[in-house]
Amino acid sequence: MSAASACRWLGSTTVSVLFEYDTPKFVHIRNKKVGLLNRLVQLAIVGYIIGYGIVWENGAQDKEPVQSVVTTKVKGVSVLNATRQFMTDCNEWPILDHVDLIVPAQEPNSFFVTTNLWATCNQKYGVCPELSTIPDAVCLTNDSCPPGIIYRTGNGVTTGECTGFNETCQIRGWCPVEDENDTLTDEGPIIDTKDFTVLVKNSISFPKLDSSYRVRNIPERANNKSYLSGCQFDPDSEMGLFCPIFSLKQIVDMINSSDGYYESLATKGAVVGLEISWDCNLDRSPTHCVPKYSARRLDNPNAQISNGFNFRYPRYYRDQNGDDVRDVWKVYGIKFEIVVTGEGRKFSFTTLVLALGSTIALLAIATTVTDVIALYLLKKGTYYREKKYQKVAKEDEESVTLKALNHSQEKSPLLREKRKE
Amino acid sequence: MSAASACRWLGSTTVSVLFEYDTPKFVHIRNKKVGLLNRLVQLAIVGYIIGYGIVWENGAQDKEPVQSVVTTKVKGVSVLNATRQFMTDCNEWPILDHVDLIVPAQEPNSFFVTTNLWATCNQKYGVCPELSTIPDAVCLTNDSCPPGIIYRTGNGVTTGECTGFNETCQIRGWCPVEDENDTLTDEGPIIDTKDFTVLVKNSISFPKLDSSYRVRNIPERANNKSYLSGCQFDPDSEMGLFCPIFSLKQIVDMINSSDGYYESLATKGAVVGLEISWDCNLDRSPTHCVPKYSARRLDNPNAQISNGFNFRYPRYYRDQNGDDVRDVWKVYGIKFEIVVTGEGRKFSFTTLVLALGSTIALLAIATTVTDVIALYLLKKGTYYREKKYQKVAKEDEESVTLKALNHSQEKSPLLREKRKE
Amino acid sequence: MSAASACRWLGSTTVSVLFEYDTPKFVHIRNKKVGLLNRLVQLAIVGYIIGYGIVWENGAQDKEPVQSVVTTKVKGVSVLNATRQFMTDCNEWPILDHVDLIVPAQEPNSFFVTTNLWATCNQKYGVCPELSTIPDAVCLTNDSCPPGIIYRTGNGVTTGECTGFNETCQIRGWCPVEDENDTLTDEGPIIDTKDFTVLVKNSISFPKLDSSYRVRNIPERANNKSYLSGCQFDPDSEMGLFCPIFSLKQIVDMINSSDGYYESLATKGAVVGLEISWDCNLDRSPTHCVPKYSARRLDNPNAQISNGFNFRYPRYYRDQNGDDVRDVWKVYGIKFEIVVTGEGRKFSFTTLVLALGSTIALLAIATTVTDVIALYLLKKGTYYREKKYQKVAKEDEESVTLKALNHSQEKSPLLREKRKE
Repeated sequence: MSAASACRWLGSTTVSVLFEYDTPKFVHIRNKKVGLLNRLVQLAIVGYIIGYGIVWENGAQDKEPVQSVVTTKVKGVSVLNATRQFMTDCNEWPILDHVDLIVPAQEPNSFFVTTNLWATCNQKYGVCPELSTIPDAVCLTNDSCPPGIIYRTGNGVTTGECTGFNETCQIRGWCPVEDENDTLTDEGPIIDTKDFTVLVKNSISFPKLDSSYRVRNIPERANNKSYLSGCQFDPDSEMGLFCPIFSLKQIVDMINSSDGYYESLATKGAVVGLEISWDCNLDRSPTHCVPKYSARRLDNPNAQISNGFNFRYPRYYRDQNGDDVRDVWKVYGIKFEIVVTGEGRKFSFTTLVLALGSTIALLAIATTVTDVIALYLLKKGTYYREKKYQKVAKEDEESVTLKALNHSQEKSPLLREKRKE
Repeated sequence: MSAASACRWLGSTTVSVLFEYDTPKFVHIRNKKVGLLNRLVQLAIVGYIIGYGIVWENGAQDKEPVQSVVTTKVKGVSVLNATRQFMTDCNEWPILDHVDLIVPAQEPNSFFVTTNLWATCNQKYGVCPELSTIPDAVCLTNDSCPPGIIYRTGNGVTTGECTGFNETCQIRGWCPVEDENDTLTDEGPIIDTKDFTVLVKNSISFPKLDSSYRVRNIPERANNKSYLSGCQFDPDSEMGLFCPIFSLKQIVDMINSSDGYYESLATKGAVVGLEISWDCNLDRSPTHCVPKYSARRLDNPNAQISNGFNFRYPRYYRDQNGDDVRDVWKVYGIKFEIVVTGEGRKFSFTTLVLALGSTIALLAIATTVTDVIALYLLKKGTYYREKKYQKVAKEDEESVTLKALNHSQEKSPLLREKRKE
Repeated sequence: MSAASACRWLGSTTVSVLFEYDTPKFVHIRNKKVGLLNRLVQLAIVGYIIGYGIVWENGAQDKEPVQSVVTTKVKGVSVLNATRQFMTDCNEWPILDHVDLIVPAQEPNSFFVTTNLWATCNQKYGVCPELSTIPDAVCLTNDSCPPGIIYRTGNGVTTGECTGFNETCQIRGWCPVEDENDTLTDEGPIIDTKDFTVLVKNSISFPKLDSSYRVRNIPERANNKSYLSGCQFDPDSEMGLFCPIFSLKQIVDMINSSDGYYESLATKGAVVGLEISWDCNLDRSPTHCVPKYSARRLDNPNAQISNGFNFRYPRYYRDQNGDDVRDVWKVYGIKFEIVVTGEGRKFSFTTLVLALGSTIALLAIATTVTDVIALYLLKKGTYYREKKYQKVAKEDEESVTLKALNHSQEKSPLLREKRKE
C-alpha cells in the first residue's frame, strides 16, 4: 500500500466511523404473561423507590446536619458533711454553691460539676518535707538527698536535707505539699450536687436550607418567664417533656437509674454525654421540630487504673506582708458534655428529579428478573431463549459462516464488497 | 437417568458453561444523519464532563477539608458610665480593660467579651435574708421557714427564721445574696466595647495533600511589624482587605449594620459566628489562597424567654482575718465563635483517570438519546425499529418456532441434541 | 380518523404495551478460547473485589468513626533562672509548678503550658504615663494630649497631661502599665518545662457498632497502680509502647528532634498537635485495638510577623484598704491539642451482600474486555464481529427493507397489519 492510499484509507475509515451508529438489538416478545410480568416487576421497583426512598426516607428532600449553639446554666447549693475532713490548713466551708463548684464558669457545650474535692490551702514559697509516697524521696540521712533534684511527680527542688515526721527529703517550693489521704472516698461525695439543676439552652439552625429557620429547645409557646422558673424535665408529662431544666441526678439516671449510681460517679468523677437529637422537617411548622434527650457515659466505666476524672486548680491570694499565697483545689467531678445531633430536610425539585432518575437506572433489574422467569420458568422459555441467544457454535463455524453469508438477511452489500477484496 | 449419567450430564454442562460466552448483539446502522447525531450527543456529554466536571468543578483535583488553628487577641479600654449602678458592696471601677472583660482569657476558636455586668462583692459565709423573688422564701413569721431547706434557685440553707426588710426566710451561705435589679437594662451596656479590636490569627494546612503547605490569614508579604499594629480590616481597600484586625462593631455590622444593633446584642448578650472561608488551589502559588470573612448570629434572635447569653464567675480573696471573701460577677456579653470552612485541592492523575472513566459510563446516555431520535423521529425510524426490535408475537409462536428450527442459522448441533432427548 | 377510532387505537396501543416485553438480544458464542477468556476475566474481577475490596479493605465490615474522650494531667516543677528579669513590681518566684503554669487548669482535648512569661504585678486604679511604644502617646507638652482619648492598643483614658520619664501622655486606668522589654527572648524560656510529664487519658467507643465496646489508651492488663506511676512512653520497648505518659520534650521531638527545637517553640509559643490514631476490629479482642501516637506543628512555623502563641490573664487581689489590685501575666507557651482519629469496623451480613452485589455490576467490564480481545485480536474476530454487529447499510436500505419484509422470520402479523394501514 502506498503512503497516499494508506492516508486515503485512514481518512475514509475516520469518516465512516463518524457516520456509523451501534445500538443494542432487542428481542420484542408479544406475550401477555411475560409482558404483564415485566410491568409488574417494573411497578414493584418504582413503587419501592417512591414508597421507601422518596416517601419513607424523604428522598425528595435536601438534607443538612444541624448547626447548634449550646449554653448551660447550673444552679444549686450544697451543704458539706460536718465530719468531712478534706483539707490541709483550710477554713471550714460548710456551704458551697454553683459559683464555687462549676469550674470553669462557662465552657462551650459542656460543664463540670465538682462532686468531691481535696483542698490544700495557704501554700507559700518555702521549704517542707517531700511526700512519702514518692519512693525516692524517703531518706534516713542527708546523704540520700542530693540537692537540686526534682523528683518525678515531685513538688519542688531538693535542698539536700532529710527531714520531717516521715523522714523524707526536704524540698523548696510551694509548702506545705498536697497530702491527699486515702480517707477521701470514705467521706463520700458532695451528695447535694445531685439536686443541682441545669438549664440547657440549645438553639439550632440549618443555614443552607433556610437561613431564617431557628428553633430552640425551649418552647416559644410557653412565652412567660414563669414557665422556665417553675418547670422541670419530665418525659411523662406534656408540660415537662420540653422543659430543658434537668437535675443532675435525672441526667445520670438516664444512663443507670439504680441506687447509688450517682454516688459512684460522684466519688471519683466521670464524663457523661447528654445527647440532644433533632429531626426537623422544614416543610412543616417549626413547632413539630422538637428535641429528644438521652444520656450515656463517655469514659470507660470498667477502667481498673486511673479511672474517673479530676484536676487541680489554684486560687491566688496576697497576704498582709505582700507575699504570695495559694490554695490548690483537687476537684473530682462529673463532666457533662452536651452532644447535639440530627438533621433538617426540605423539599427540593432537583433532589426529586435525581431520585426519580435513579429509578430509571434500577429498571434494568426488572429486565433481569423477567428474563429469569420468562426464559427459565415458563413453558415457552426454550423458545424465547433461542430468540434471545443467537447461538454461534465452534464446531460448525466454517459451515455456519457460509450459511450465514448465503442465506441470512445479514448478507449486506458491504459484506459482499469485503469478500471481493 | 442413572446417577452416573446425571453426573456426566452435570459435568458436561459445567464444562460447556466454561466454554461459552454471551455478548450483546448490536445493530450497526450506516447512516450519515444517525451516525453524526450519535457522535454529536457523545461530544456533548464528553464536553459537559470535561468542561463542567473537570475544568469548572475541578474534577481532576483531590480535595481535602481545611485544617485550622485559630487564636485571638482582644484589646481595648472601656470607661463605665458614671451613673451606672450595677453592684452590691463593690468598689467603683470606672475603667475596665480587655484583661477584665475577656473571660476566660483564652478559648480555642472563640472569645467572650463582657458587655454588661452585675457584680456582687465581698460575699462571706454568714446569714442573710433570702431573695424575695423566690416565692416560697417570702414569710410573715418563723413558722413559714422550716430550717435546713434549700429553695429551688435559692442561695443557701434556711436557718428557720423570718427576717429582713422584705421579710423573707433567713439563709446560711454566701452573704449578701446577689440581688440584680431590673434597672440593669436601663443603664445600657458597656458601650466602649464596640471599639475593642480583635486580632484573629488563623493558620491553615492540608496535611494529606501537602504537609508543607501552610497559609495564614496574615499576608506574609506585609512582613514588617508595623503593618499589624496599624491596619484594620476594610473590605473596600486593598490594604485593609487582608488585615485580620476587626473592631467588634465591625463584626456585628456584618450581620446587621442598623443603628443600635450592637447595643441590642450587648445589653442581654448573644452568640455571634465569624466565618472564615478558604478556597485554596495547591497547584497555584499560596498568595492566591486568601480568606473571606462573614458573620451571622448563632443564637435565636427571636427568643421570647431566656434570650441572650450570660454566666457568673467568682473572684476569691482572703481578708485580714484569714476569712474567705468572694465577688461574683454576672456577666452578659457577646460570644464570638470563629468558624473556619473551606477546602484545598491539588491535581491528581488518579482522580483525573477516575473522572474520565465515569465519562465512559455516561456515554450510554448518548445511545438512548440517539435511539429516541433515530427510531421515532426520523423518516427511516420504522425500518431501524424493525431491525433493533426483533419481534416475537404470541399469535404465531408455534409456526415461528418451527420455522426458526428449520430455516434459521441458529439451528445448532447442541439444539438438535437437546431435541433428541 | 374519527374520535372514536382514535380512542380505540389509543386504548389498544396502551393494552398492547402492557403485553409486550423487550429483552436485549445476545450472541451466544461456543468457543473454548473465548469462553475461557471471559471466565478468566470474570474470575479476575471477582478475585479483585473479594481479595482487595472485602478482605484487604474490610468491605464486609460496617465502619464507624471513633468517639473519643480525652483528659490530660500535667505534672512538673520548674526553677526559674536566677538572673531572670521578667516582671514589674512582682515578688520573686523562683519555683513554679504545673498548677501555676497550666492555664486554664483543664481544657477539653488540649492543654497549654506556660514556657515564657512577662508579669506585671500590683496594678491599681490610678494615673500613670502611657507606653512610649504607642506613637500618638509621645508628647512634649500637655497640648499634645487631649483628655478623654483612648489610644489604639492603649491602656487607659488620657487625663490631658504630658508626663513621665519618657514624656508620654498620662492616662487613668490600671497602673503601672505593662512594659514588656525586649530582653525577654534573651532570657530564654522556662526550660525545665521540657521535663514536665503529661498523662493523656483517651477512652474510645463505637456506640453504633457496639455500645458496650470500650477501649482506653491505658492497657488494662497493667492493672496495678504502680504501672502508671512508673512508666514513660517509649516506642522502642514493649513496656513503654502503650504507656500514655509523655514528657513535653518527647512530644516536640516527634516533630523535630534537633537540638534547640524545644527552646525555639518555648520562647515565643506554638501550637502542637498530638495525634492518636486507632484502627479497631470489633470482631477481634479489644487487646488488638491499640493507639498510635504522632505529632505535628499546627501553627505556621514560617510566620514572619506575629508568630507564636501568647495571651494575658489576670489575678485579682484586695489589699488591706479594700482596694482592688491585680497582676497581669502575659504568658507565652505551647498549646498541645490532642487529635483523635480512626475508625472501628465490625462484620455485617448486609454490608457483605451489598459488596457482593456491586461485584455483579462490575462483571459487565468482563464482557467489554472479552469483546475487545475476541472481536479484534482473535483470528475468528471478523466472524464474531459479523454476528455481534448486524449491519444495516444506508446504500441499499430500500432493497434490504423489502428483503427483510419478505424473507425474514421477523415478518409478524403485527407488521403486516401496520402495512395495511
